[in-house]
Amino acid sequence: MSPASRNGSANKKVYSYLGPIGTFTELALAQVAEAKGARLNAVAHVQEAIDDVLTGRAIRAVIPVENSVEGGVSATLDALAATENIRIYGEYLVPVTFDLVARPGTALKDVHIVATHPVAYAQTRNWLNKNLNKHAHLPATSTAAAAAELLDNDNADAAIAAPTITNHYKLKVLAKNIGDNKNAQTRFLQIGLAGKQSPAATGSDKTSVIVELPTDRPGALLEMLEQFATRGVNLSRIESRPIGDRLGRYRFNIDVEGHVSDSAVAEALKGLHRFSPKIIYLGSYPRADKKKSVHEGNNSNVEFSAAEAWLKSLR
Amino acid sequence: MSPASRNGSANKKVYSYLGPIGTFTELALAQVAEAKGARLNAVAHVQEAIDDVLTGRAIRAVIPVENSVEGGVSATLDALAATENIRIYGEYLVPVTFDLVARPGTALKDVHIVATHPVAYAQTRNWLNKNLNKHAHLPATSTAAAAAELLDNDNADAAIAAPTITNHYKLKVLAKNIGDNKNAQTRFLQIGLAGKQSPAATGSDKTSVIVELPTDRPGALLEMLEQFATRGVNLSRIESRPIGDRLGRYRFNIDVEGHVSDSAVAEALKGLHRFSPKIIYLGSYPRADKKKSVHEGNNSNVEFSAAEAWLKSLR
Amino acid sequence: MSPASRNGSANKKVYSYLGPIGTFTELALAQVAEAKGARLNAVAHVQEAIDDVLTGRAIRAVIPVENSVEGGVSATLDALAATENIRIYGEYLVPVTFDLVARPGTALKDVHIVATHPVAYAQTRNWLNKNLNKHAHLPATSTAAAAAELLDNDNADAAIAAPTITNHYKLKVLAKNIGDNKNAQTRFLQIGLAGKQSPAATGSDKTSVIVELPTDRPGALLEMLEQFATRGVNLSRIESRPIGDRLGRYRFNIDVEGHVSDSAVAEALKGLHRFSPKIIYLGSYPRADKKKSVHEGNNSNVEFSAAEAWLKSLR
Amino acid sequence: MSPASRNGSANKKVYSYLGPIGTFTELALAQVAEAKGARLNAVAHVQEAIDDVLTGRAIRAVIPVENSVEGGVSATLDALAATENIRIYGEYLVPVTFDLVARPGTALKDVHIVATHPVAYAQTRNWLNKNLNKHAHLPATSTAAAAAELLDNDNADAAIAAPTITNHYKLKVLAKNIGDNKNAQTRFLQIGLAGKQSPAATGSDKTSVIVELPTDRPGALLEMLEQFATRGVNLSRIESRPIGDRLGRYRFNIDVEGHVSDSAVAEALKGLHRFSPKIIYLGSYPRADKKKSVHEGNNSNVEFSAAEAWLKSLR
Repeated sequence: MSPASRNGSANKKVYSYLGPIGTFTELALAQVAEAKGARLNAVAHVQEAIDDVLTGRAIRAVIPVENSVEGGVSATLDALAATENIRIYGEYLVPVTFDLVARPGTALKDVHIVATHPVAYAQTRNWLNKNLNKHAHLPATSTAAAAAELLDNDNADAAIAAPTITNHYKLKVLAKNIGDNKNAQTRFLQIGLAGKQSPAATGSDKTSVIVELPTDRPGALLEMLEQFATRGVNLSRIESRPIGDRLGRYRFNIDVEGHVSDSAVAEALKGLHRFSPKIIYLGSYPRADKKKSVHEGNNSNVEFSAAEAWLKSLR
Repeated sequence: MSPASRNGSANKKVYSYLGPIGTFTELALAQVAEAKGARLNAVAHVQEAIDDVLTGRAIRAVIPVENSVEGGVSATLDALAATENIRIYGEYLVPVTFDLVARPGTALKDVHIVATHPVAYAQTRNWLNKNLNKHAHLPATSTAAAAAELLDNDNADAAIAAPTITNHYKLKVLAKNIGDNKNAQTRFLQIGLAGKQSPAATGSDKTSVIVELPTDRPGALLEMLEQFATRGVNLSRIESRPIGDRLGRYRFNIDVEGHVSDSAVAEALKGLHRFSPKIIYLGSYPRADKKKSVHEGNNSNVEFSAAEAWLKSLR
Repeated sequence: MSPASRNGSANKKVYSYLGPIGTFTELALAQVAEAKGARLNAVAHVQEAIDDVLTGRAIRAVIPVENSVEGGVSATLDALAATENIRIYGEYLVPVTFDLVARPGTALKDVHIVATHPVAYAQTRNWLNKNLNKHAHLPATSTAAAAAELLDNDNADAAIAAPTITNHYKLKVLAKNIGDNKNAQTRFLQIGLAGKQSPAATGSDKTSVIVELPTDRPGALLEMLEQFATRGVNLSRIESRPIGDRLGRYRFNIDVEGHVSDSAVAEALKGLHRFSPKIIYLGSYPRADKKKSVHEGNNSNVEFSAAEAWLKSLR
Repeated sequence: MSPASRNGSANKKVYSYLGPIGTFTELALAQVAEAKGARLNAVAHVQEAIDDVLTGRAIRAVIPVENSVEGGVSATLDALAATENIRIYGEYLVPVTFDLVARPGTALKDVHIVATHPVAYAQTRNWLNKNLNKHAHLPATSTAAAAAELLDNDNADAAIAAPTITNHYKLKVLAKNIGDNKNAQTRFLQIGLAGKQSPAATGSDKTSVIVELPTDRPGALLEMLEQFATRGVNLSRIESRPIGDRLGRYRFNIDVEGHVSDSAVAEALKGLHRFSPKIIYLGSYPRADKKKSVHEGNNSNVEFSAAEAWLKSLR
């Protein structure tokens, strides 16, 4: 729990987010219309943000879920798999660009030790190999922490952080946009408690679930995918994570096109519930990319209703 | 229409059946408990029996649908595909055995011309090749008609017919049980109008449909089968018939295990309705073999209800 | 066996065909380029034509295999399933049109008894119901036999036969083109012994097999279809026939696009051989419709060769 | 490149491994029979180990690939996806247990700052929350480095490391076996250059590939899985990783049962080569768990050979 969450003014709703200030999460938060005017509460760990929501210390939280280069954020995926009370209320895409920053007066040639979060380090290795090929890496818990500490001690000579870091700290930019992949993006989720104001269908929606596979049959993954295919439901993401009890057992984080109020999605979810030993529903929410969500192969709500009416007429 | 259907006593319910008397259909009719005491009306063609039901001249009809050696009865399959008002109320299995019969006084060595229905002829060719290898075949519209005509004219010397033929005609049995396949069976259906007293689920049920495939995608048959597989619904029969408009277009006569009141069957049928340009529902009815109908892979009604309740709890 | 086959001139090759002269098979035979100048041998039954090929009495035979209205010709399908030595050398499409013919001097109003083959009768019922609604049907072994017998006896007043019948018999046409379906077609096969001059790939080919399903697993039909789908091989026909030993066991007559020398087809066939308890290969041959046969999804011979070369490079 | 690799005695083969000494990789290395007597070269990053193999500085390398709790090691998966010249020569399972170690004289109550690698930290959080609920975490590049630095400076009071760390450093064990999951395992790979002494089939083998999905069709993952299912090839692992160019594009790290010299595996790989825009073959190697690798559904080498012979006999 973050101390900040205790002394906030009682009449303000609280948004927790993976901090500290100056990280990419802040840029995601800036996209959340409902968060305008809320008290923002930076926390140190994804689990803390989720706990804030579960205990009511925060009405919502904004956390990263996947990066186009590094993949799923394990801490988020595993934390979401460990509770059934969380729902997703929105998703946000943030371009990931990195700057090399240092204390005023530092030149590039003075940089021997570079502090940053390991993921940021991994995404800037090409630039570092070319421009600072003898540097050492000092791992930090976040890009913002790495930058902030430059002003506290001289353990490092420079830090790799988000461009917005200079809004918060008096630091000099030694190099701009040093990421290896210029199109890198991170996807963030706005989460809240289940059962409160689920987002209504907009026609451009996603639905997220976490599904464990039954262990008693080969081909279980194929069978699971057919639960979607039979109803014309497209997957926009499928990511495996170990269940954790032993090697070879996975749960799958799945995003599909469409809203739980779409008949195709609802029927697929019910099929998964029968099929899977454990399924966690994370909610339906508007897509960040605004594209229409379509269910192929005659699986629109109109066609589902017609089939229902037909079957009723038979009995 | 058969003349007999017009002058029956008004207070008796009428069962039409594919006649004439002495055919295998009579043996199926003997298994139909509800037909006890009904007036039995032999007709000359399957279509006639169906028309009797459609117009109300008969409350029910009993017609053959498939033979274990010869396959589907095309006339029945095509007639059922041409109306949406017929339902199946029961199925009956009749062992198919053939006797060679002749006018009294005839010996086997006197037999040169053998009358019978082409299907019966096809099923006794081995015996005929061995025992009457120089005979000629005179086709007849039914095995019973072939036998009856022996007493009207001497176009043929012998006939191949069901053993019960001697209950109706004074004929001599020249050889018993001459069928090539001693386990041959014919399956019969009891049909009636839709909407009247559909058989309730017994736990040992079948459901029959006729499904056309969409023409716009290769792999359509595979897709259709997945509609069943995804819900754990087993097929006990799948038989193709040409749609008739051009080569290469088929409709499929399908029997599945289970009753339309089973959630797995109901959902599969609705899936087919969306998928198929044309589906005809023929009804749910008790299986002749009395075996339990099971839906594999967690697709029982209990599991469907649990999934439904789960989904409701999410919203 | 037909007597004609014994006393033919030894220096001519013999083509057997399902006779008698004047049936639709003759029209198919007229399309067979290789049969020009051959001695044509009409036989009474499909099995006889196949036996002629198997014993060497004929070099080839032409037999009907399916009709767009009536479906598969059971006698042909079952005879092909009973031997492994027959191959298909070509397929031919014949439009099926029917005329009502009678002895010279007969008028339509004089027709009370109509002779024809049951299949032809089934395909002209609409016209008959409208124009001769009180007639009786006299079944015949073929449309040509029905027509020929008009000149032998007066058992029937008219016959339904192919338009070419008047090339062979002095008969009067009472009505032309009386078939219910104006686009009806029958598909014929040219068959011969295995191993002799198999047709080379033309790019517009078909391959035919007969496949039994394993009985020990539900979903076996779906599994069989996946053997084709995985290699991008399209089915142009799938027709079930009972195996005959008991109800519920089927073999499938399958035509696929492509030639056995196409890698996609070859691999699919080998997959079927492993999968199926019994598979009969009927050959690869040019398509009657001349359309290109394509294997979708990167399954051309070029792509198969590239994959083979890649795998070799790995070891 | 690690300095150690330059001054090794020329007559000794070199094994690089993810160091430093005292990490779990050392325990994996101890299982590698071929490494006995080799010079062991600890490197700081997975990429470095792979580079050592690619440039010939090391004959082999041992690197972690997945952990039963944390999932795939992204650095390894991404490095393997970036070259086509690496093959896997063996896999090794190491139980993951953690001890809390400190400078001699330290008591548990004195511990305020705990140094360790973030993954080790994540796997001991339950114990830490219960026993040191006010501690701070100091991230380190490895568990061994965290422990070693305890003797260099007092930035931290204790470190979480593998039990074998005390073989290398004079440290006191404050608590043993503090991992949250007592069955945690890490799986390691022995890698080398392609084309040198690929492991022969043992009957208990695995084959690993990395496969990109085509982007032009929904259901591509399902299609990919059918490439395996059609040949009876079981997946023992499937793990998604972002391709990195944009969100929503994944490559799949797949381990299957069986050896590339098994026909079923070879045909599946060729199928994947046609299907996938990019496939990387990582090799066949003996399974760590010694279980037999079976290809279900009549897909043994014997059945593949029989199918091949059958097809040859047809042409």
